[in-house]
Amino acid sequence: MKKRINLCLVGFGNAGKAFCQMLNEKNHEVELMTGYEIKVVAIATRSKGCHIDNEGLDLAKVISDVEKNGKFDEKNPKIMNLDTLSLIKESKADVMIELSALSIEDGQPAIGHIETAFSQNMHVITANKGPIAWAYKRLMKEANEKNLQFLYETTVMDGTPIFNLVKYTLPGCRVESFKGILNSTTNFIIEEMEKGNSYDEAIKEAQRRGFAEANPELDVEGWDAAAKTTALVNVLMDAELTPLDIQREGIENIEVKDIEKALKDNKKIKLFCEGYRENGKVYGSVKPTLVDKSDLFATVDATSSVLSITTDLMGEVVILERNPEIQQTAYGIYSDLLTLLNHL
Amino acid sequence: MKKRINLCLVGFGNAGKAFCQMLNEKNHEVELMTGYEIKVVAIATRSKGCHIDNEGLDLAKVISDVEKNGKFDEKNPKIMNLDTLSLIKESKADVMIELSALSIEDGQPAIGHIETAFSQNMHVITANKGPIAWAYKRLMKEANEKNLQFLYETTVMDGTPIFNLVKYTLPGCRVESFKGILNSTTNFIIEEMEKGNSYDEAIKEAQRRGFAEANPELDVEGWDAAAKTTALVNVLMDAELTPLDIQREGIENIEVKDIEKALKDNKKIKLFCEGYRENGKVYGSVKPTLVDKSDLFATVDATSSVLSITTDLMGEVVILERNPEIQQTAYGIYSDLLTLLNHL
Repeated sequence: MKKRINLCLVGFGNAGKAFCQMLNEKNHEVELMTGYEIKVVAIATRSKGCHIDNEGLDLAKVISDVEKNGKFDEKNPKIMNLDTLSLIKESKADVMIELSALSIEDGQPAIGHIETAFSQNMHVITANKGPIAWAYKRLMKEANEKNLQFLYETTVMDGTPIFNLVKYTLPGCRVESFKGILNSTTNFIIEEMEKGNSYDEAIKEAQRRGFAEANPELDVEGWDAAAKTTALVNVLMDAELTPLDIQREGIENIEVKDIEKALKDNKKIKLFCEGYRENGKVYGSVKPTLVDKSDLFATVDATSSVLSITTDLMGEVVILERNPEIQQTAYGIYSDLLTLLNHL
Repeated sequence: MKKRINLCLVGFGNAGKAFCQMLNEKNHEVELMTGYEIKVVAIATRSKGCHIDNEGLDLAKVISDVEKNGKFDEKNPKIMNLDTLSLIKESKADVMIELSALSIEDGQPAIGHIETAFSQNMHVITANKGPIAWAYKRLMKEANEKNLQFLYETTVMDGTPIFNLVKYTLPGCRVESFKGILNSTTNFIIEEMEKGNSYDEAIKEAQRRGFAEANPELDVEGWDAAAKTTALVNVLMDAELTPLDIQREGIENIEVKDIEKALKDNKKIKLFCEGYRENGKVYGSVKPTLVDKSDLFATVDATSSVLSITTDLMGEVVILERNPEIQQTAYGIYSDLLTLLNHL
């Protein structure tokens, strides 16, 4: 007999939609691979309404309603006015998927969503990096105590394996340090400036192409990169830092003349995220860094990203994601779901 | 109570020595991580003698004997004159580790070693790519039927996760194609020629530095690259090819003027390994290929290597190994051992 797994989604932006699209297409394949039938039984959003149906939502219809009207179908009697925490509880789901917007100041309300899910004995997958940057140790401890799974592969470099790379494929290795280009908005802006555009023009182009928010501060001031750096030091290097502990310098003070000088010297400027150990302590930093044009990191262009991990036993391993689209984010959540099912 | 796992090594060249060194240093850590005590109880070699001791060999002494005298200590009564297959059987080990030299023509005698180990209900780890290039499907079927593990991460890019990357961290993905630079000897030779050395000088320098064999044919004619390409198409793309099925072109016809022309056009020549699907069939090729200097692949220099994997759900993921030493090969075997113990 098929075993059924119910999902509750918190947040239904582009990543949530793309994940549901993938799930809808792959549902039968998931059953064949894992033996589980997957249903989305609840979706909580701030602006599109809330949705609960223990029989499982019609994902194609939900996606099409949101694409047509920007919100769920109000004629549906199963749309209700519940706050998110109540909906998580009401949903009685097996897995909560946290997809709400990043709040860089404190990781809330996502941390609260996750704690509520754990209190209901739900496994959790988060694509929101806030909880990993602000409360990783505490949340993981809670999950372990309740024998629940807590997965977060999507929080750095979308579905590209980073955390799973270290956990499953580099057994026995200690991560000594890492460096990477992890924020695609700033990488894209710097590249636009290399083409001769001003900083303001570059930001406008990034906004037009959908890479930058209306308020681009989180990206250009290095906060997003700092949150990812924190997630990496906390998970891979057993640190207990917050984004406030990261030495952070964004790209907002880079001028066209800096870029021109770099190019003249056969160099490029890249916003580097680094983690390292010094005197037994772990540190993280985000800062614009000059690299030779012939360097691997200089070839990481547009919205691509890269992470180089240096370990004691295996030396340096580098992994890249090239030209990701929203599907790569959806895959990160989908791959966490498969990993979760394989470990039930 | 500690459970004990006995290993039998076939072959004891640089990789075998480095693996034993790592094992000797990490033995206690392995016990803490897995609960197993590991002993090497037998080593078979062609030129250094054979060694069996059910109590477990003194690895430090074995390594030092071989380094001092080029062979095992003949005064040791546990040195015996057994052929390899008999030694595998005599060893009564739990795991056989195949480290003999690659025979590109047919994958023997390594395939025979592995079949003998399976017949004795031993798990197998191979760092020798011959068996994966020539008999992967058959050997894996045999292992599965006997509920034995058969691991081979080291056969492509040393300990860099390739097979485990796809198996453990890209669940649900279908590999559509791959391309990579997988033979470090030819990569090094081309680079020497870019510096202005002739082909013969470049080979001599590679031999002097230990990257090329006395007879460099296997590398420069693309056979080693073809064996790796075969391993990749067989494991990752469910093909059943042999190195003879790979469209193969080596670097032996590349002249200094080709390299100079490429450099003048802002390009580099790299020996590419590719796998792809066409009309439902899987193909593999090895051939010198021009790449732009600004391309990621152009930055893979000296003995570094790279593999780009294109999947249906996750798009393109690229993994690199930078400047490996023999320790990275040792780690590949060690990581397979840990993976094996974690799945016992």
